[in-house]
Amino acid sequence: MHALVLQHGALRFRSDHPEPSPRTGESLVAVHRAGVCATDLALARGYMGFRGVPGHEFVGVALDGPLVGRRVVGEINAGCGVCSRCLAGDPRHCERRSVLGILGRDGAFAERLALPTVNLLEVPDAVADDAALLTEPLAAAFGVVERLGGVLPEQALVIGDGRLGSLCALALCDAGAKVDVLGRHFERQALFDGARTRPGHVPRHLGRPLDDEPLGATDARYGLVVEASGRSDLLAAAARRVEPRGTLVLKTTTERAVPIDTAPWVVDEIAVVGSRCGRFAPALEALARGLVPHELFIAERYALRDGERAFERAARGGVLKVAIDILGR
Amino acid sequence: MHALVLQHGALRFRSDHPEPSPRTGESLVAVHRAGVCATDLALARGYMGFRGVPGHEFVGVALDGPLVGRRVVGEINAGCGVCSRCLAGDPRHCERRSVLGILGRDGAFAERLALPTVNLLEVPDAVADDAALLTEPLAAAFGVVERLGGVLPEQALVIGDGRLGSLCALALCDAGAKVDVLGRHFERQALFDGARTRPGHVPRHLGRPLDDEPLGATDARYGLVVEASGRSDLLAAAARRVEPRGTLVLKTTTERAVPIDTAPWVVDEIAVVGSRCGRFAPALEALARGLVPHELFIAERYALRDGERAFERAARGGVLKVAIDILGR
Repeated sequence: MHALVLQHGALRFRSDHPEPSPRTGESLVAVHRAGVCATDLALARGYMGFRGVPGHEFVGVALDGPLVGRRVVGEINAGCGVCSRCLAGDPRHCERRSVLGILGRDGAFAERLALPTVNLLEVPDAVADDAALLTEPLAAAFGVVERLGGVLPEQALVIGDGRLGSLCALALCDAGAKVDVLGRHFERQALFDGARTRPGHVPRHLGRPLDDEPLGATDARYGLVVEASGRSDLLAAAARRVEPRGTLVLKTTTERAVPIDTAPWVVDEIAVVGSRCGRFAPALEALARGLVPHELFIAERYALRDGERAFERAARGGVLKVAIDILGR
Repeated sequence: MHALVLQHGALRFRSDHPEPSPRTGESLVAVHRAGVCATDLALARGYMGFRGVPGHEFVGVALDGPLVGRRVVGEINAGCGVCSRCLAGDPRHCERRSVLGILGRDGAFAERLALPTVNLLEVPDAVADDAALLTEPLAAAFGVVERLGGVLPEQALVIGDGRLGSLCALALCDAGAKVDVLGRHFERQALFDGARTRPGHVPRHLGRPLDDEPLGATDARYGLVVEASGRSDLLAAAARRVEPRGTLVLKTTTERAVPIDTAPWVVDEIAVVGSRCGRFAPALEALARGLVPHELFIAERYALRDGERAFERAARGGVLKVAIDILGR
């Protein structure tokens, strides 16, 4: 089948990639559309040492199982099915998990993929394909709320106004916080204004990026700061924006070690909390409500055979979501 | 008065240091005995740029106020008294706080000190002077439990078997966890065995230090890891011992930045939580119950005029608490 394959440090379109072989309990999905994520770009640079088909944001049609013929999205962590975490219904930290297009499992930049049947969710009619494509990153954004046990302070700061940062800002507003955003793209305010958040809860872009500098006199500190810039070198500056006993949530995964002095974390007793994947159900529900103005989100489309160009475009930045249209040849 | 004074990067005994001048709402305390803490050693190396009299672990007698003539210990954070945190009774994060012997306030290695009267607590008769000297570090150990909202996993790991690490192990056992300890001093097991923790909850020394290496096959991961080794370079290895969605509590404050790759924190969704000072009341109550075998804790005593030697001895390590006897001349 046709697929984008990461091999020997390079991404290549292949027309002869082997079909996925679903195991017991897994379903085949015909992929219609897939989104390029910062993690995909990191994988292409060598993160996780991944080889195979990347891609974990997709919408498609189930080819078998109870949802056969339906439009589906799929949670990306495939657990062993027998450990205590899997039996509790949450394979996200199964020690033997594979992760679609990230760890030990071919992903969505291909005509077909396999996932455990329990991972698939039907896409409501109210959710267009382009909106469904945002299910995974929006779930990751709502994952911040889940990781904090649903307890949010009144005011939050999101650092980064790219793909994930913007969705985090919308998710936190939807969960009831008042959210400020720091980043290089002040034009994202239009996106926030077009979102259907709860009344009075629109993310406010502060019109500048985070500076890696001591706090200025006008730099507020927040009970919650979400670091979603994709830049690990901003960690110390992000921590400085956290109130005493407040929380810094890390969404950025890069393979780069940066020097950190943790003494201020101890003195101010801040919590630095990692957050990765979220559940799809609340994200799909929010998409059905029109939380995300997806027509402003999907910036550019490429055919599968132009996948290398899609990656280059996403890596250049300045756009929100780059989509790869598997059906368009 | 007699005092140890930190000036121009050196600790010196002075016989002519000015008496403290208590402000409104403050009391004078005649210091009887004071303990040397890792933070004191860090201050002497330049941490916080502190100048003046260090020392924040003490027992003494109140010279005025409602506790006049009584044996007292004192919480070390002196707030402004008018901000919302102070009005809520917790000055530990008051933005204008001073901290006894650490920040903007002369400390306990002197004949007399001043603290807000509300900071003083009477020492119960059941608590000997040498035990009372452990109130501040034991409160800091119980502060871990407080910082986690009293919610502990069944199993915890304490990294570091020095002064603070050993007290953290005892506090966590007292709070109901089963605690393993990593450190260089296997002989600390005798200390743990001599502690009056709850039945069946004795810290277990694993007989080796933390290695800054990938996890071995027999290296368990824990829902809670407390880093109290005083070595910031162990941070990454400490984080590897935390279960997915578990918590790493940082007690170590050093001024040194170390390279950290936070991607595993995100992937495993761990929380890294700073913890500094605890309240004195639960610590005094535990000391009155005999939780800490203080006779095994206070290793060596020095007169105030031999303070430099006391610091040198504490810095050499291998002993738990070095005490300075202010009354012994």
